[in-house]
Amino acid sequence: MNPLAIELNDILKGTTVFELLSDFGKRFFFPKGIVTQSAEAKQKAHRFNATVGMATLGPDPLYMKTMKEWLPSLTAGEIFPYAPTPGVPALRELWKEEIYAKNPAAAGKNISLPLVTTGLTHGISTIADMFFDKGDKIVIPDMFWGNYRLIFEGRCEAEIVSFPFFSEEGGINMAGLESALRAQSPEKTALILNFPNNPTGYSPSVSEVEQITALLVKLAEEGRKLLVISDDAYFGLFFEEDTCTESVFGFLADAHENILAVKVDGATKEELAWGFRVGFITYGGKGLTDEHYTALLKKTGGAVRANISNSSKLGQSLIYNILKDPSHKAQKDESVKLMKVRYLKVREALAKYSPDCILKPLPFNSGYFMTFIVEGKSSEALRLFLLEEYGIGTISIQDKYLRVAYSSVDEDDIAPLYELLEEAAEKL
Amino acid sequence: MNPLAIELNDILKGTTVFELLSDFGKRFFFPKGIVTQSAEAKQKAHRFNATVGMATLGPDPLYMKTMKEWLPSLTAGEIFPYAPTPGVPALRELWKEEIYAKNPAAAGKNISLPLVTTGLTHGISTIADMFFDKGDKIVIPDMFWGNYRLIFEGRCEAEIVSFPFFSEEGGINMAGLESALRAQSPEKTALILNFPNNPTGYSPSVSEVEQITALLVKLAEEGRKLLVISDDAYFGLFFEEDTCTESVFGFLADAHENILAVKVDGATKEELAWGFRVGFITYGGKGLTDEHYTALLKKTGGAVRANISNSSKLGQSLIYNILKDPSHKAQKDESVKLMKVRYLKVREALAKYSPDCILKPLPFNSGYFMTFIVEGKSSEALRLFLLEEYGIGTISIQDKYLRVAYSSVDEDDIAPLYELLEEAAEKL
Repeated sequence: MNPLAIELNDILKGTTVFELLSDFGKRFFFPKGIVTQSAEAKQKAHRFNATVGMATLGPDPLYMKTMKEWLPSLTAGEIFPYAPTPGVPALRELWKEEIYAKNPAAAGKNISLPLVTTGLTHGISTIADMFFDKGDKIVIPDMFWGNYRLIFEGRCEAEIVSFPFFSEEGGINMAGLESALRAQSPEKTALILNFPNNPTGYSPSVSEVEQITALLVKLAEEGRKLLVISDDAYFGLFFEEDTCTESVFGFLADAHENILAVKVDGATKEELAWGFRVGFITYGGKGLTDEHYTALLKKTGGAVRANISNSSKLGQSLIYNILKDPSHKAQKDESVKLMKVRYLKVREALAKYSPDCILKPLPFNSGYFMTFIVEGKSSEALRLFLLEEYGIGTISIQDKYLRVAYSSVDEDDIAPLYELLEEAAEKL
Repeated sequence: MNPLAIELNDILKGTTVFELLSDFGKRFFFPKGIVTQSAEAKQKAHRFNATVGMATLGPDPLYMKTMKEWLPSLTAGEIFPYAPTPGVPALRELWKEEIYAKNPAAAGKNISLPLVTTGLTHGISTIADMFFDKGDKIVIPDMFWGNYRLIFEGRCEAEIVSFPFFSEEGGINMAGLESALRAQSPEKTALILNFPNNPTGYSPSVSEVEQITALLVKLAEEGRKLLVISDDAYFGLFFEEDTCTESVFGFLADAHENILAVKVDGATKEELAWGFRVGFITYGGKGLTDEHYTALLKKTGGAVRANISNSSKLGQSLIYNILKDPSHKAQKDESVKLMKVRYLKVREALAKYSPDCILKPLPFNSGYFMTFIVEGKSSEALRLFLLEEYGIGTISIQDKYLRVAYSSVDEDDIAPLYELLEEAAEKL
């Protein structure tokens, strides 16, 4: 059991609460990690706070102006009533069109109607409930969002099997991926891919996506049943020319009868609407008919109903209206451009790092983050040193990596931030 | 397994989807019942739609005017960012004050800080996860919201044990409640009470609440460990003088060391904000210290994080602002008054029913609904007859009861609606 759960259980032992808790209740805890480190940063990072997975502009969230302008125009019917459990029908249809528009590889492939979830996490936890029994395994590259552990291991008592994300040459470790998959049960081999990746900010090249697809098809042809989840939380924030700008989902949606592809995405980051809690689950599999999709969506909708009944109507109405707004594309392009400028500033700043610096950036080209390996020192010690001495908030992972969310640092602050990071690493 | 689940599984058999589904996925389905019947009514009930648990005024939801007026005044910081996993701190503090203000019996008792959930259902499903293992039992009076079955039985594989809600004299069946509780394991006896009740619209009298409290304390004194969940979804809508206008939670929060009281409530109905998805979980138990509550809330917060990450910031900001608005109390009183007028019209209409009418109302005095026993006829046949021949939407339960949501019928329409109900029952 997790030491944090044991700590909480020790406090509760001797009370009726402890006697009444389920196994789930006994093993649960509130993770330290990103949430706790962000809370610390919020209090102490008076200079730069590069902890949270949001995009900011000055003191404000980087939101779309028309989204706020839409608020007073909404009708009472768009704000107050319940939304249907699987989501507002017009929004689901529209999001499906968006998926096709953003993913040319999905063209002509029969995918399900997206089902609305209360944000990305809810999409992943719903899929975890639907497909993972106690003891099932899921393959995840070793750089992953900490909440996966709480979802797959904490909730479902499944087991995360990881492999080194990057090969020594710097791209995705295809050999590691293949052997991790081959070590799984041929009756159920599950994989989750999160591109742009949290925490590294890496997205694969077109050639890498082709290799991943070919590998999965090969395994499927050998008779292996595969569940492949694309966590596309940071979709669209691609900053380099050779990056694949499509979800792996589009390539797998019609690849082989033995592959069920699942796309989990949402308005959270794509539409700069973090607190709205509007996400989507979309299924794709070769040979699946509309009747199959309807049955699967009814099951998934039942799981949603037994969990949260339905998702925010107000959030769904706003996302629908913004997507329909003629100025939407220009606004979105502008926000991506703004993030790209920050990305380029990070690249510029890193180019000036001394070769002796103990901070070695992992490959990154997209999303909100970049991550350093902290060579020969504790990344947690560095995080605390940065926070206490410099007023800079970052995230330490496994006492080895330091994640920097440059998405929440203004353009002009990037150079000074990275200079201070180098200085602190040297002084530590 | 539920026949609807079997039906969906039969469609999916032979696909990779079916091979990959977990036990949870295999047993899930989308319930017919209220959701499906409401969808039918939405299409066909051209005259009156008395199906859904919302309050309406003409074609609109019955919302608070200032809530809509608040929308344009919200700052970007109140709209777009993530809310903390356990909820916006100021809203949690304020809701705790509200609980004390609305429940004098809770005065001076040390209860936990409320934890924000994505609506009432999410509060109940989170408690179900935290406290119910496969095979555990929960006692529920036999008139209950259908989603309880999907949550406790579907999600957690617990077992619902029910007893007849009403005694032959018309009030709560105290003897039935006691024997149902005594039949449970003394190590864990769980009970959920939903007042005002869905579907009957019944709330207990002060004397009944005292009897319930005394019974639970007696069982606790005998060494029985009790989990008592108050589902206060419809709290505040009390229309008769002798009704207890407080939650059972306030009486139990400090009643005995062997009782853990849980209050699940929310803005959904209390603040006329159905689609916002803002609910709360609050714990109360004698002898529990702040340290105990913090530990329990950390566990519960972990469960929320591994499920949905966090709840709508926009919804929470609106609820906070409306609660702080000086006009709030007057607006809320007005909406309760409007519902009471409808209630009194229902009473008036029923007083005119012939003694031979096969529609016999169950006791009701609060909330959104009232329910008829349909004597000697199928309530489902009556529902379909009403829908097809009269354009009236109602809900049939167990082919025996007919639920009428007068909350969504305007004052002047109540008398004609009830006349038509009687006429249809006669003609059937």
